Amino acid sequence: MPERKGESTVVMSSRPTILGYAAVVGKKEGEGPLGRGFDYVFEDTTMGEKSWEKAESALQKEAFTRALNKAGYSPSQVDYIFAGDLLNQCIASTFGLREFQRPLLGQFGACSTIAQGLAMAAVFVDSGAADVCSVVTSSHFCTAERQYRFPLEYGSQRPPTAQWTATASGSALVGLGGSGVHIAAMCAGRVVDLGVTDANNMGAAMAPAAADTIYRFLQDTDTDPEDYDAVITGDLAAVGSVLLNELLTEKGVALGKRHLDCGLMLFDREKQDVHAGGSGCGCAASVLCSHILGKLERKEWRNVLFIATGALMSPTSAQQGESIPAVAHLVQLVSE
Amino acid sequence: MPERKGESTVVMSSRPTILGYAAVVGKKEGEGPLGRGFDYVFEDTTMGEKSWEKAESALQKEAFTRALNKAGYSPSQVDYIFAGDLLNQCIASTFGLREFQRPLLGQFGACSTIAQGLAMAAVFVDSGAADVCSVVTSSHFCTAERQYRFPLEYGSQRPPTAQWTATASGSALVGLGGSGVHIAAMCAGRVVDLGVTDANNMGAAMAPAAADTIYRFLQDTDTDPEDYDAVITGDLAAVGSVLLNELLTEKGVALGKRHLDCGLMLFDREKQDVHAGGSGCGCAASVLCSHILGKLERKEWRNVLFIATGALMSPTSAQQGESIPAVAHLVQLVSE
Repeated sequence: MPERKGESTVVMSSRPTILGYAAVVGKKEGEGPLGRGFDYVFEDTTMGEKSWEKAESALQKEAFTRALNKAGYSPSQVDYIFAGDLLNQCIASTFGLREFQRPLLGQFGACSTIAQGLAMAAVFVDSGAADVCSVVTSSHFCTAERQYRFPLEYGSQRPPTAQWTATASGSALVGLGGSGVHIAAMCAGRVVDLGVTDANNMGAAMAPAAADTIYRFLQDTDTDPEDYDAVITGDLAAVGSVLLNELLTEKGVALGKRHLDCGLMLFDREKQDVHAGGSGCGCAASVLCSHILGKLERKEWRNVLFIATGALMSPTSAQQGESIPAVAHLVQLVSE
Repeated sequence: MPERKGESTVVMSSRPTILGYAAVVGKKEGEGPLGRGFDYVFEDTTMGEKSWEKAESALQKEAFTRALNKAGYSPSQVDYIFAGDLLNQCIASTFGLREFQRPLLGQFGACSTIAQGLAMAAVFVDSGAADVCSVVTSSHFCTAERQYRFPLEYGSQRPPTAQWTATASGSALVGLGGSGVHIAAMCAGRVVDLGVTDANNMGAAMAPAAADTIYRFLQDTDTDPEDYDAVITGDLAAVGSVLLNELLTEKGVALGKRHLDCGLMLFDREKQDVHAGGSGCGCAASVLCSHILGKLERKEWRNVLFIATGALMSPTSAQQGESIPAVAHLVQLVSE
């Protein structure tokens, strides 16, 4: 049974289990520091499909299927799929998962969607509304670039604060029982908008949302950063990570070296020319569903806060002069 | 506590209450058969904003605020907002609701989003994860037309099967206790795709999904259409409604006159030139949060199935030759 704690944290009394997880990525992501930890690395960004959008759907299908296989489950055993992506009308999820004909509850939190999906799955399983839920998210550099920015053929220059959308998908299967990694709690993010308008500086837009959620969770649970082995943000990357630490320091919270960021972990910024780091719904999802859950499963970490961040804008809102609202959803992961 | 029933239905044992609800609409919707039942009718489709997208955000803000006010709640008492819309990256919700700074869990089920949001709110409240949840969705004829089809200035001709996107928003506040209308159960939709590729015939694409969900719910609960005062679909409109009844008749289920459709209720097709009927995230939401909940509150109806339907496509998927997957989420509403 989910139990509320403090203002806005929900503790899962049955601690739903990550029954299986998988991450599949593109070539560039496979060449990064975490490359050996992924379940599959596609050498061709089309994944054999006729369009990049169809390729992104293929990524979701692959991650979903592999997570199920690793857990020894079939698609028909999944009660609900919580899925999302960055494409208009979330078509990577819809088309990638339609053949499985499972109840689909589409989630949209931009790059925070993997944490939002995990939080939903945890509440559904912990409450008895579901036995088994799947969570899947994805992004693809080529679909995001042409939808949000410019045609790839244009070869636009990118400022140093820009981030590189990951070609990746991560999926986790959530159920009850067994040892392994568990979802202990969740804290949903509020929309925070400090007025950043530079669509090439998502890290700056998202950092205040991450700081807000982390601070509220620590207050709700009466814990300190020292109580966790790692505090891992989604994709604040280089610029946003510095800002997050500044914002939290102002509130008397020092994350120190236990702060990690998926956008900084996925790529080698020295060698891979990704400017400020990685981003996209697939960035935090693929790092979670390989490196992070792996370290928890091997008990190298015991207690981790995972806070995926999302910039809730669109090209239309940017063109209309709007600033960039952001959100950050937190899940607490423990290994037992 | 949510309890599973049958294959895929969840019964809410505490029967979360609709604490308040409101619907605000545009001029054309206000001139329709349900016009007098709406909380507010905007005479100007810009709602005083500089763009239609900002106007749609204003619709959501207005519906959200009015539902809260009618229930006697303040925004700070809302634990979670489940919101969504048809715009790319759901910006109507994000920008419309950001000022309230409440935890936002973005939902995407196209025109089915209002039912999906109600289902999520019901599970959260019934399980104890939340005390009070708000559900909000919207659509706007002008934002949808230019995003999905053509610039309005182009004045494109529409085939008879086309539907008219409602300029409307509906919001419901869900909590525990009190008399009134309650959410008794939910049944989430599966993605159903029978290969319809005509983006001007959404009703045909969505009817199979509605039939699938209604049939599964009746099987799960061992009930017949006669057990309900009304079985109300989201926006199948004229074409989809006929198909739904054909599909269910094939399975031995006769809805008869208790079948109603929000797309057919919102407009007067004889006088209002909307072709097959209304559609959009705001269509089912505004009909629910005025007419349907009103009849339940006045106990003219006691037991209603509300099944909002969504077409999970995008202009990009249509251009790439994809068919239209659809989904339909069901909530059972009872008055006591």
